[in-house]
Amino acid sequence: MRKSYLLTPGPTTVPERVLSAMSRPMIHHRTPPFQTVFEEARKGLQYVFQTQQDVLILTASGTGAMEAAITNLFRKGDQVITINGGKFGERWTKLAKTYGLNPVEIKVPAGSAVDPQELEKTVRANPGARAILFQASETSTGVKMPTEAICKIAQAANMVTVCDAITAAGVFDLPMDRWGIDVLISGSQKAFMVPPGLSMIALSERAWKMTETADLPCFYFDLKRERKGLPKNATAWTPAISLVIGLQESIQMIREEGLENVFKRHATLAQATRAGVTALGLELLARNAPSDAVTAVLMPSAIPDAKAVIKLLRDKHGVFIIGGQDELEGKIIRLSHFGYCDKFDITTVLSGLELCLNELGYPVEYGRGVAAALKVFGKSPKES
Amino acid sequence: MRKSYLLTPGPTTVPERVLSAMSRPMIHHRTPPFQTVFEEARKGLQYVFQTQQDVLILTASGTGAMEAAITNLFRKGDQVITINGGKFGERWTKLAKTYGLNPVEIKVPAGSAVDPQELEKTVRANPGARAILFQASETSTGVKMPTEAICKIAQAANMVTVCDAITAAGVFDLPMDRWGIDVLISGSQKAFMVPPGLSMIALSERAWKMTETADLPCFYFDLKRERKGLPKNATAWTPAISLVIGLQESIQMIREEGLENVFKRHATLAQATRAGVTALGLELLARNAPSDAVTAVLMPSAIPDAKAVIKLLRDKHGVFIIGGQDELEGKIIRLSHFGYCDKFDITTVLSGLELCLNELGYPVEYGRGVAAALKVFGKSPKES
Repeated sequence: MRKSYLLTPGPTTVPERVLSAMSRPMIHHRTPPFQTVFEEARKGLQYVFQTQQDVLILTASGTGAMEAAITNLFRKGDQVITINGGKFGERWTKLAKTYGLNPVEIKVPAGSAVDPQELEKTVRANPGARAILFQASETSTGVKMPTEAICKIAQAANMVTVCDAITAAGVFDLPMDRWGIDVLISGSQKAFMVPPGLSMIALSERAWKMTETADLPCFYFDLKRERKGLPKNATAWTPAISLVIGLQESIQMIREEGLENVFKRHATLAQATRAGVTALGLELLARNAPSDAVTAVLMPSAIPDAKAVIKLLRDKHGVFIIGGQDELEGKIIRLSHFGYCDKFDITTVLSGLELCLNELGYPVEYGRGVAAALKVFGKSPKES
Repeated sequence: MRKSYLLTPGPTTVPERVLSAMSRPMIHHRTPPFQTVFEEARKGLQYVFQTQQDVLILTASGTGAMEAAITNLFRKGDQVITINGGKFGERWTKLAKTYGLNPVEIKVPAGSAVDPQELEKTVRANPGARAILFQASETSTGVKMPTEAICKIAQAANMVTVCDAITAAGVFDLPMDRWGIDVLISGSQKAFMVPPGLSMIALSERAWKMTETADLPCFYFDLKRERKGLPKNATAWTPAISLVIGLQESIQMIREEGLENVFKRHATLAQATRAGVTALGLELLARNAPSDAVTAVLMPSAIPDAKAVIKLLRDKHGVFIIGGQDELEGKIIRLSHFGYCDKFDITTVLSGLELCLNELGYPVEYGRGVAAALKVFGKSPKES
């Protein structure tokens, strides 16, 4: 008997009641029962995105919605500024190039957030750029980007903001309308606690206006076509029905907890995780701008390959975390702490980590990491 | 208490054991448990597609895979021949135009299959065309297209065949390698009995060669990138994990029944459905080339709007069928008979139809349609 614990930044654990909702008999998408589900899911997405705009649901993983943002807003040759602080920032640049845009990339060191002053400089140097493309949370490094500051800089320069919030929406506060985020993107398998297969995207009025002059080819990801069906609660193509049903249920859970409380819970879990690994003598990759979604931890020299930790945790202890990608491969481990995650998931992963570190030749005092996390939980009377 | 019966051509009914498989706790896609599932699902797809080629699994509905076929194979300005026998054939033309191809469209009357002689004429008149794009089964009209003949014509003219088999693969015999189909496409919510959200696509060697010179932009639907991950059982993007798990289970069911037996069952169900509605005095839309996937039935003049039948069947009797699209809206009803469907699903939908027709002012003798269907089932000792 071995239980499994999923602390990966997508997919995240799917709650029992969401699994149960998705296992009901199949229904057809052009019928009232589905239309009701779809409408409620969309309202729930507006609640989480904190927007009055329509939130479109695409049957695709997050990269599909990122592509949709590019092809629906821009014209061939358009200059855009991309913020590359890791694998997902890099994806904006690649996507922009694939579709014939002209990206000006700000390369940010792994583990750091973009410096607003540097961004401002780049914006001034490229007054013709039409947009700033960035991640609210760069999952590959565990960094939180300064979304509000980025929006202000963009607005002053009359540029739109395209925000990949795939591991940010529903994780921490990211009020789309209040901050003036022009395009906000997320995915089902993140804070929405649903299996992967859906991505969501919302556009501001300004962004919708840009779709009228965009000239890049799109068909499956044609957002104008998706929007046209909404008054009838219809999608352009057959949607991933069971996942939308799961989304309706999971958003109901978010409503019951309250968005503010969800954010607080995530903040506390993240703080406890950071306290725990730091107490074990480990170093955080994103010291100055840690994201509440995921914590990236550098492995000590005693453990030359971080993959050994991940494999041991998984194969011996049933705890699933992930490692680094590309140049961070083998150097970091990443612990996720959002979605269907509570304080005992954190003590579990820290307990498992303590076991593995000792087994792999990096001695730690048993319970030290867990104790540091418990101190955080104990201090926070709001956490239950 | 009202039971629901789903006789729509996608989504089709999801079997209990598939629902159950999909409701297991979430797993991560970059781990051995998922890699095993993914590998088995892909092997099963090869079995159903009757191909030695890799079958790629995309997180998207079928239109996504259709778009992938266009953007991965062709060059801007390429001439292609599209066969438009309904809504889905029309989609090939639209997709081709969206991406700057030059489609020569053969318009086929609703309810008819393309005439191979006419196709040959068009092929001769357009020797520069690189491909023939068509549906193996045109779901909007219930027509089966002559795939084998189309492939022979294409091969003689050195054109590739791009076959939308979304409601054909796993429904009736469509041996990809033997017939030389160059691109074969399907979707999870059809004969695969899984909720919508996945599409599958396989390419012949010839088609893979074309991807090397293709110049249309693609990123999310980059098939070369998808293929690169297969040796490690990895997808390019996060896959719809729960649906792939469902697919593994449903393909296991297809293996247990045997592909040949699945085809025979579908053929018998289709024959019984046609016999049943004909016995009620109704006319088939696709008289000469009916598909074993779906039967389109014209409504008599006593029932001016077919939607009344669909609504009554659904709202009063819990039986879900669909109607016509575009110019066929209000004129036809469509009964689906593939996937998780047996003879009593057919007697159920015919029973429901008999109730509705009488209620709506088209008198039929109770049991007449059902009796005609039972005669077909009774005649076939293979059916159980």
